[in-house]
This record gives sequence, C-alpha cells and structure tokens, in this order.
Amino acid sequence: MILATLQGGGIDGTLVVVSRDRRRLVVPPRGPRTMQQALDEWPSWEHALEATFVELDDERHGFPVEHATFDAPLPRAFHWAEGSCYLQHMERIRGGRGEALPVDHLRQPIVYQSGSARNMAPCSDIALLDPAWELDLEATVVVITGHVRGGASEDEAADQIRLVGMTNDLTYRKLLVDERRQGTGVYSSKPGRAYAPFVVSPSDLGPAWSGSNLRAVLRCEVGGDTLGVPRADRDIAFEFPQILAHLAKTRPLVPGSIVGTGTVSNADPAAGYACIAEKRAVELAKDGAATTPFLRVGDTVGIEALGDDGTSLFGRIRQTVVPA
Amino acid sequence: MILATLQGGGIDGTLVVVSRDRRRLVVPPRGPRTMQQALDEWPSWEHALEATFVELDDERHGFPVEHATFDAPLPRAFHWAEGSCYLQHMERIRGGRGEALPVDHLRQPIVYQSGSARNMAPCSDIALLDPAWELDLEATVVVITGHVRGGASEDEAADQIRLVGMTNDLTYRKLLVDERRQGTGVYSSKPGRAYAPFVVSPSDLGPAWSGSNLRAVLRCEVGGDTLGVPRADRDIAFEFPQILAHLAKTRPLVPGSIVGTGTVSNADPAAGYACIAEKRAVELAKDGAATTPFLRVGDTVGIEALGDDGTSLFGRIRQTVVPA
Repeated sequence: MILATLQGGGIDGTLVVVSRDRRRLVVPPRGPRTMQQALDEWPSWEHALEATFVELDDERHGFPVEHATFDAPLPRAFHWAEGSCYLQHMERIRGGRGEALPVDHLRQPIVYQSGSARNMAPCSDIALLDPAWELDLEATVVVITGHVRGGASEDEAADQIRLVGMTNDLTYRKLLVDERRQGTGVYSSKPGRAYAPFVVSPSDLGPAWSGSNLRAVLRCEVGGDTLGVPRADRDIAFEFPQILAHLAKTRPLVPGSIVGTGTVSNADPAAGYACIAEKRAVELAKDGAATTPFLRVGDTVGIEALGDDGTSLFGRIRQTVVPA
Repeated sequence: MILATLQGGGIDGTLVVVSRDRRRLVVPPRGPRTMQQALDEWPSWEHALEATFVELDDERHGFPVEHATFDAPLPRAFHWAEGSCYLQHMERIRGGRGEALPVDHLRQPIVYQSGSARNMAPCSDIALLDPAWELDLEATVVVITGHVRGGASEDEAADQIRLVGMTNDLTYRKLLVDERRQGTGVYSSKPGRAYAPFVVSPSDLGPAWSGSNLRAVLRCEVGGDTLGVPRADRDIAFEFPQILAHLAKTRPLVPGSIVGTGTVSNADPAAGYACIAEKRAVELAKDGAATTPFLRVGDTVGIEALGDDGTSLFGRIRQTVVPA
C-alpha cells in the first residue's frame, strides 16, 4: 500500500491512503487516524488499510493529490538513525578534507542517531541560519519499521520493514567538521530533514524493491540543474537488513523508527551526486578548487526517486532556501 | 506540581498527579491522559493539573503510591540529548584510559543524542547482554522541556523547563570506547535508561532548584553498598539553560524533550561516584589496578535524589541486573 500524512488534524497530521497511480487519496474510513497509530497497531489495521488501497484502484474513488497539503509521513517520530552505507560518499568527502576514514568502516556500518522529533514537509522552506555553516542536501533512502526486537537477526529485521520512503537529510558541513573534530557525535550540524510525501510498502514497490534495498535512481536538482542521478542499488556496502540488525544489537527499534542508509553515492562520476560536498571534493581533487557553492538563499532543491519504469516512487521533495 | 505515569492504559501509560508528600496520587479528573499530551497542550492543562495537585494536599484524597506500578514518566519520548557538564567525570574516565579529552570541552558543552523511544520503568530489570561489554550505571539529572524555539537564548530556554527528574543512563563502557575509537557517536553503547517515577515542576522543588540546576545529593548504591553521594550543584561547568540553548542552536526542542546534564561527579573523592567507571579510574591511578567490578547478574542498582531536607525528590530507581 501507499500511505501519506496530510497537514492538519493535530500535531501528527492526518493519515491518508494513496492510490497506486499516486494521483488520488482518501482518509481511511475506519482505523488509525495517524501514521504512528497505524504503525503501533499494524497487525490490527494492515488489512483494512490494504483493502482501502485496493479500492482506490477504481479511479472514481479518492480526491486528487494536487489539492492536498502533505506533511512528512511521520511529522514527528520516536527514532531516527542512519548507517553510512555508500562508502564512496564517505571516502570522497573525508578524503577531500584529508580526514581519516573511520576505523573498521568496511567491516561494520558507521551508524548515528539524530533528530526525529520534528520532520519537515516535502515542500517546507529551508531557513538558512548562517551561510558560513555550509548548508548541503543529502538525498537518502529510508525505511519505517515495526518492532525490531533487541538482538534481531537480519532476516527478522527485514520482516519488520513496513514502509519505504525518502528524505533530504540537511547538513551544515562546516558544523559537521567541527563536531567530528570535537570527538562527539553530530548534533547541531543536522538541522532537520524533509520527507517525500509517499511511503510505500515493500511489496507495492514491485521491481523497485530488491528485498533489502531500493532499486531506483535518485534524481537530485539544485536551482533546476541536475546535481546527480545516482542509483540506490549501486555501490552500497550495507543494506537495510544489516543496518537494522546492527542498530538492534543492544536495544530494540520501536514501531515508527525511521532508518536511513546514508547519502546515495555511486563510484561512477557520470552518475553525479546526491549532495554538494561530494561534487566539491571531486572538483578540488581535479581542478585544485571547489567551484560549486553550497546552498544559498533563493536556491531550490528537488529530489525524486524514479523506478526503472519512470514511476516517481515517493513523490517529490521540493524545497526553497530562505533567509532565517 | 508532581506528575508520574502509571503502567497500563496504552503504550504511553496513564498520567497521574502525585501529592506534595509523594505518598498519594490521582488520575486527573479532566484533561490529558498521557504525559506527552500534557506537555503538548501545557498551556491548556497546566492550571487544571496544578489545581489537582493542590487538592491532594488534603490527605483524604488520592490513592497510596505503594499500590501503583510506575512506568517512566515518558514511556517513550520524541527526543533525548545530554551535555557532559560535570567535567570531572570526563576527565577521570578518559584520563584513566589515556584518551584525549575532546577539543574545546571547557568552552562549550559536549552534547550527544541517544535513545528516547523506549524508556525503562523505575524498577525495570536490566538484561545484561554480554558481561564483556562492561555494564555501568550513570546517575543523571534531567529536565523535560516545552517548546524551545531554534535559536532560543538561555533565558528563553530556562522558561521552557517544565519538569525535573532523574535517570539511570546505562552504558556499556567497552562498546563506548569502541564507538569513540570508530569516530562516530555513541549508539550501541547506550542500551537504555530507567527513570525515577516522579517529575517535579521547578517551582515545587523549592530550595532544591537553583533556577538552573538541581540542588541535591544523588545517592547511588550497587548491591546495597554506597557507590557515591555526589552533589548535583557542585563542580558543574554548564547548567540547564546553557545546554538547552546550545541544543537549540540549529533546531528547536519539541515539547516532551528530555535533556540531561550527564553523570554527576564531584572533584572531592569523598563524595564517591555516580558510575562505576570513575571509581575504577581512581583505583587504577592510586593502586595500579581497578578492583571494583562492573555490574554483574544479581546486582541491584539504587539511585535516589535527596534534597537538603532529606526529601526523596523523584522517588527511587531500583533495578536488578538479570541474565539476557
């Protein structure tokens, strides 16, 4: 099925079911009112939500998505964590700064936890607090989980992938360098994330879901120009089941946990980039100077995941950078 | 006022108001059903909850706390972050391992984010997953906030301190060293936190609240033996308003955010310790060997905050270590 959250109806918004063609939606006639409630009570409501989704195959049903104002699928979530799974990303960025790569990064995923308490809508403006902090986008594939018990195996964890989606994991590069130098985790360098409007169950992604990862291109644009079209299923060192099992090593993941695999990045430079910092690192290595600027006031950021049949799997993230 | 959450009534438990003498409680007759709801809608319910609290001064009202089964005040929360504010703690522990102290740790607080999605009840057993991971307690003072806007000043942030409480921030020391060596933030080394049952508004802490920090002893016991009785208002480099403002630098804190000031630690060794690792570091420096073991199956951990008049401010954390 395909789910989304409309703005309004309370802090957590209003859950809607979206049609397979992603053109229409309905508020489910019975069952959960919010995405979190659906995830908390998934065994109770999965079939009813699925039935509503199938009913929407009849094009006479539902309201046009153009008239809807989407929030993030989970406007607030209890957990967000990410593994850095596209090692090319880490190698380009840290290499470009002459920083050492983390010990053991080839053997086990580098994970960190960050903000989940207030997620941005797909078309939220981005307030640029300080240009000197070097604001960057990071196009990232995420899953939303059910309950993953502590100590779960990769297979058990994979069975708890309820929904798949996409986020723009905003990063202040300069603050990130400072925080890493300080020897703590990232905090201030991660001001927030906007989410694509639709989240899709793995079974309804069809060939766009490998069983453990998304099979799609992430088309990333800044100011209308293509920054990159990397594939999510290329050059990935750790996939979702591994990340989830790693995260569940000493504590469970609760229903509604959002987990990402990090900025998508391909070894082939022709694929371009899903963040600006990588492009700059390559420019620096090649030309001795990074010329692509970080995000500036007035810039628009567009991110879309395209399946091999051209379907826009999660709808578009489209944000404008505005003064703080 | 004093609030708590009883187990039962849903994932988020049932909100109760606790009497000033901490002996009786009632489910509020109107208003929010959960702690998160109270915090989300604080301006709407603060006066009603306060009125219920005052009614409980009449000893004929309420049920005895002995008959209640408390959950964590927020069984799940949207945000948890901590600053390392007792520098003695960091200096002893990292110094004892020959590790460098973080750059700038005297100038700005070292903060990190960790799990909030599933908090442990005050008397939850602690499952010891692997003794080689070196399980330790960490007695920590926390506040629960209202909405702290991004870029808030210290004064604005202080005004959003809704409730004060206490947690046992469990830590696997060996995993923490590994994660720090890896150059990422802490994740697996923090399996969870148990919370003392009561949370108290700053005004009702009376002389036990300085305006920016708790004025109390944290009595810490392992296996019935005193580990330490450090004071929370001694040797603290950064207080709550500073930590909150620091955390809000690039993103707001939502209502129900839990923020700690780190393991309480005093320079005077006569105060003892609020975690085992510090005691071991001092033993190692003094005698050439650390003799106090980390937590073992069968150990009990007791933590209590005592005001200068002897009041047990937040009730007791009392946990037993059990096999996984």
